[in-house]
Amino acid sequence: MPGPHFDHVALIGLGLIGSSISHAIRRGGLAKRITGAARSEETRKIAERIKLCDAVYADPAEAVAGADLVIICTPVGAFGPVAEAIRPALKPGAIISDAGSVKTAAVRDIGPHIPEGVHFIPGHPIAGTEHSGPESGFAELFDGRWCILTPLPGAEPEPVARLKRFWEACGASVEIMTAEHHDLVLAITSHVPHLIAYNIVGTASDLEKVTEKEVVKFSASGFRDFTRIAASDPTMWRDIFLNNKEAVLEMLGRFNEDLAALQRAIRWGDGDALFDLFTKTRAIRRAIIEAGQETPAPDFGRPHGATAEKKKSA
Amino acid sequence: MPGPHFDHVALIGLGLIGSSISHAIRRGGLAKRITGAARSEETRKIAERIKLCDAVYADPAEAVAGADLVIICTPVGAFGPVAEAIRPALKPGAIISDAGSVKTAAVRDIGPHIPEGVHFIPGHPIAGTEHSGPESGFAELFDGRWCILTPLPGAEPEPVARLKRFWEACGASVEIMTAEHHDLVLAITSHVPHLIAYNIVGTASDLEKVTEKEVVKFSASGFRDFTRIAASDPTMWRDIFLNNKEAVLEMLGRFNEDLAALQRAIRWGDGDALFDLFTKTRAIRRAIIEAGQETPAPDFGRPHGATAEKKKSA
Repeated sequence: MPGPHFDHVALIGLGLIGSSISHAIRRGGLAKRITGAARSEETRKIAERIKLCDAVYADPAEAVAGADLVIICTPVGAFGPVAEAIRPALKPGAIISDAGSVKTAAVRDIGPHIPEGVHFIPGHPIAGTEHSGPESGFAELFDGRWCILTPLPGAEPEPVARLKRFWEACGASVEIMTAEHHDLVLAITSHVPHLIAYNIVGTASDLEKVTEKEVVKFSASGFRDFTRIAASDPTMWRDIFLNNKEAVLEMLGRFNEDLAALQRAIRWGDGDALFDLFTKTRAIRRAIIEAGQETPAPDFGRPHGATAEKKKSA
Repeated sequence: MPGPHFDHVALIGLGLIGSSISHAIRRGGLAKRITGAARSEETRKIAERIKLCDAVYADPAEAVAGADLVIICTPVGAFGPVAEAIRPALKPGAIISDAGSVKTAAVRDIGPHIPEGVHFIPGHPIAGTEHSGPESGFAELFDGRWCILTPLPGAEPEPVARLKRFWEACGASVEIMTAEHHDLVLAITSHVPHLIAYNIVGTASDLEKVTEKEVVKFSASGFRDFTRIAASDPTMWRDIFLNNKEAVLEMLGRFNEDLAALQRAIRWGDGDALFDLFTKTRAIRRAIIEAGQETPAPDFGRPHGATAEKKKSA
């Protein structure tokens, strides 16, 4: 069985995911050398100051030279240009993967640039926070989370097994599926939830009868939960919606149908329909907690009371 | 200025809010005696076992006898019957309030049963968790949160000031507004967010192309955030939607309009419209954190990594 270790890992894009992979590699001693590439000068400066990688480059081709594992961690919209740029520098036998939230787009935009003898295995670690940038990463981000790999039909099994072992050594469990199925699963578990969170936050800030100040003040009644994912990186999320259009619109269609039925139940005072749905949804949360994907603590374990005050002022 | 202390507080309904008020009263030494009433025998047994009150009754009229502050903490749908039941037992000069999420319904259903010489001041502490029942309460629930009072036109100022001081002693800040405005504010900050959370959880569990098991497994990509508020008490929430119909339908209309525009932006590939909204929404979260209504910790401060594993198995 191939081990999780690589001589040289190159991370293209040093945001939350790229920086967390670097920390996880170091925690596990999974590579002798880590190089990084970032387009923004500010990101490169921060990465150098906090010693995120052994070397940081503006040009992704320089970062990948000699790497035996390359992971593209940029927003999905940059996949094509990045793949084109690194193509001539890719080492024969290297594995190239990505961390993007739309896997058909990775296949479409990275796939055509992969030279003979390089193993392209699209991937997606299901982990994140609402923070972004090179200082937001931490080694534990992938612990207990899933990482989905979507190898192309006919992919060689050994590089796939090797990449699987790498992610497992980063703390994740690995699941294999097709890129198309991944995009449907993520449309409902991630993309549509983000879209409706962005939407309700937008709606709430645009009212005449209720001021934005009131929305902020009384947000602990439910609204503030939505603002977390609506604070996620705008470029990353714009690219996700532009690149997973069909699956998102399909799942959004379902959401809208169901919401119309719920709206009708409210209008006509159908308490039983409301009660039945509200009972069913409790079971889903219990299942997520039992699956180890959520904390059982009330209110996500948010601090309450004096401790909260101390943490706020700290 | 009237003090926060009462001789005898009666709590009708001993769920999350009723039990938390009891704990907050004891923490602050705010009453000499606390009585409680619960319709369910199981709730009464638990309340007695954990010594939540000095005495617990099945009949709310017994609980309120002699009380100088009565707070109705049942679901909104029980307000009318409870008020009717306690009417003959209310002490002259007592303050009666509630903790319901729809204040026009409190006025409509409790108001007609208030005898001459009893001060009815509807109230709503903006605090909660997704847990319910007499064991879910804790003294810190209201710390740093807002409590809205909606006194009727012509209400005497002294009882209002006294109830305000009581809530402040429970850790909350108090805001005064009309019942109608409260219901609009809560429709957008609480009721519609809960409705769309319940809805997306329902949609996700009803698909053919994506299994419920997959939804659970990959929920850390955004979906699990919604399951928290969709795990809230079904009876409480059924009653909220049935009793704040107009405001909820009005705010839901806004939400739907905005979502249709967003859907169109995705279909037509309007990246700038998406980016602009996603940037604006970040600012709202920052404002909520600055207002002390949310933790600045990433991911709500959810545990990650080895600590998370330990907490799960604890």
